[in-house]
Amino acid sequence: MKRFQLFGYLNKDMDLLEKQLYRSVEGGGELLTETSLHLLKAGGKRLRPVFVLMGGKFGEYDLDKLSRVAIPLELIHSASLVHDDVIDDADTRRGEPTVKAKWGDKIAMYTGDYIYAKALALTAGLPNPRIHRILSKAMVEMSIGEMEQIRDFFNCEQTVRHYLRRIRRKTALLIAISCQLGALAAEADEEAVRLLYSYGYNVGMAFQIRDDLLDLSGTEKQIGKPPGSDMRQGNITLPVIYALEDERLRGELLGEIGRIRESRSGTGRAIDLILTGDGIKRAEELASRYVDKALAALDQLPNNRTKRNLRDIAHFVTGRAY
Amino acid sequence: MKRFQLFGYLNKDMDLLEKQLYRSVEGGGELLTETSLHLLKAGGKRLRPVFVLMGGKFGEYDLDKLSRVAIPLELIHSASLVHDDVIDDADTRRGEPTVKAKWGDKIAMYTGDYIYAKALALTAGLPNPRIHRILSKAMVEMSIGEMEQIRDFFNCEQTVRHYLRRIRRKTALLIAISCQLGALAAEADEEAVRLLYSYGYNVGMAFQIRDDLLDLSGTEKQIGKPPGSDMRQGNITLPVIYALEDERLRGELLGEIGRIRESRSGTGRAIDLILTGDGIKRAEELASRYVDKALAALDQLPNNRTKRNLRDIAHFVTGRAY
Repeated sequence: MKRFQLFGYLNKDMDLLEKQLYRSVEGGGELLTETSLHLLKAGGKRLRPVFVLMGGKFGEYDLDKLSRVAIPLELIHSASLVHDDVIDDADTRRGEPTVKAKWGDKIAMYTGDYIYAKALALTAGLPNPRIHRILSKAMVEMSIGEMEQIRDFFNCEQTVRHYLRRIRRKTALLIAISCQLGALAAEADEEAVRLLYSYGYNVGMAFQIRDDLLDLSGTEKQIGKPPGSDMRQGNITLPVIYALEDERLRGELLGEIGRIRESRSGTGRAIDLILTGDGIKRAEELASRYVDKALAALDQLPNNRTKRNLRDIAHFVTGRAY
Repeated sequence: MKRFQLFGYLNKDMDLLEKQLYRSVEGGGELLTETSLHLLKAGGKRLRPVFVLMGGKFGEYDLDKLSRVAIPLELIHSASLVHDDVIDDADTRRGEPTVKAKWGDKIAMYTGDYIYAKALALTAGLPNPRIHRILSKAMVEMSIGEMEQIRDFFNCEQTVRHYLRRIRRKTALLIAISCQLGALAAEADEEAVRLLYSYGYNVGMAFQIRDDLLDLSGTEKQIGKPPGSDMRQGNITLPVIYALEDERLRGELLGEIGRIRESRSGTGRAIDLILTGDGIKRAEELASRYVDKALAALDQLPNNRTKRNLRDIAHFVTGRAY
């Protein structure tokens, strides 16, 4: 996926951040620079840096200060992706071969460690200890979320609450603190900081639900990887949990998931089953409710151009803008 | 290996640190707490916390302040071990099954990520930004060292300089900053901070050379894993590099290492070859030279009980005290 192009007025700053991002992983020798840049240059929406800059628009916008939060956040996100690809045995991400596929598990693991460490070394320059606390706490939560995901692989008894807690840690938290830290770095007032956190959290939840939906209902071209990847690796997402609640689907779906687990079946039949029920619709509705909460938080922020853009992003996330 | 028992007067504080260490990894759910505690409770010499406390003895010794440096350092060390065991495919460490062996690569990877993150969250409470900078920079260097180690696996053309740079990053740096950060946290004077860093760095280099020596000349009981493990995984250590410099050994040793690489041979013959040359002796001499440098740095520090203990450790490390 390409970088968000919704807000031309941030493009110049985002171009600068992009260059800083590449520079930030230099200095680790040839191989680490190559693997790290491979990951970063494969692209991505740069959603977290965009949110940092936008959060900064509610205080004293200073690109230099903001970049010292934005770059570590994108690095932490990227490091988690590299490690995820090892766990998920993923060969492609964003349509490109993964570091894991190109260099193997071991090099992918140390590339992730290196990028995490680089992110932290960058935050070490920050004057506000609160920012550092928020960032490191988020990393703890993220790693707990990753572990929960492994633990819950192929667990067909998990509840919606289970799922929501997991994606909160895995995705929503980092997006929430992107908005929050942008505002904090720009010394915005406490109320704005709080509202931006709430906006980011709810958009993040909607974003992950949407992402999980696309894995079932999207095309390979749309999502940059074969559909059904989540299920193949055992990641039981919201529409699947809903479908399993449906008595008419549960029995056959359980059987299909069992066969997928033992690699005796593809995901085609399971996806067809899910599509016949109302799991997709219910998941879309829940995503919409999170978007509504994000919009409600936005409403209380002062009116400006950034606020309008944040509204566009919230709509974009639930696919209303597709 | 058991905790150093050389300095009774630190035992009470070390017992307190040990409990804090266990508590520090709580809160991540059942599985993460279990895997993290498995790693920590398997023991270890707690060399880094010991050095922190001893560094603190050259300033205003405050256990609470020192523990906020000591615990993160031991956690970073432990996290690196968990990830190393994945890379090295190690089944035992310190005579216990590794996290990797008990729970598999994926869980070992996230356990490491979690422990790293916990270490950082702890440092987030530190008031001195210089400490945070030193710590995060060391983590960057460590991950570069790990990557260099992978890159250099089975590389029989590497030089002694190559090797020394690698162990500097992999081991010596973290021991150096343990001594340094203890002194810094206790607000010791700059000259003491510098000398303690130098002591730690040189002891760390000697320690790793000695460790690599033991892998070739120690017994399984002594080292808690089968001898020759380094070579089996492709880690070409100092005595091997020296042996490869010996024209009478080089040809046959190259052949043996090639066969080890292809799993067509054990390490017995290669070790015998190395033992016939002077590689072991030369490596011991280099370790001794590092110990001498550590002792020279010590000499310039004020005389006290801790200084005598640090001298004992330096001797212990090169095995003179065995």
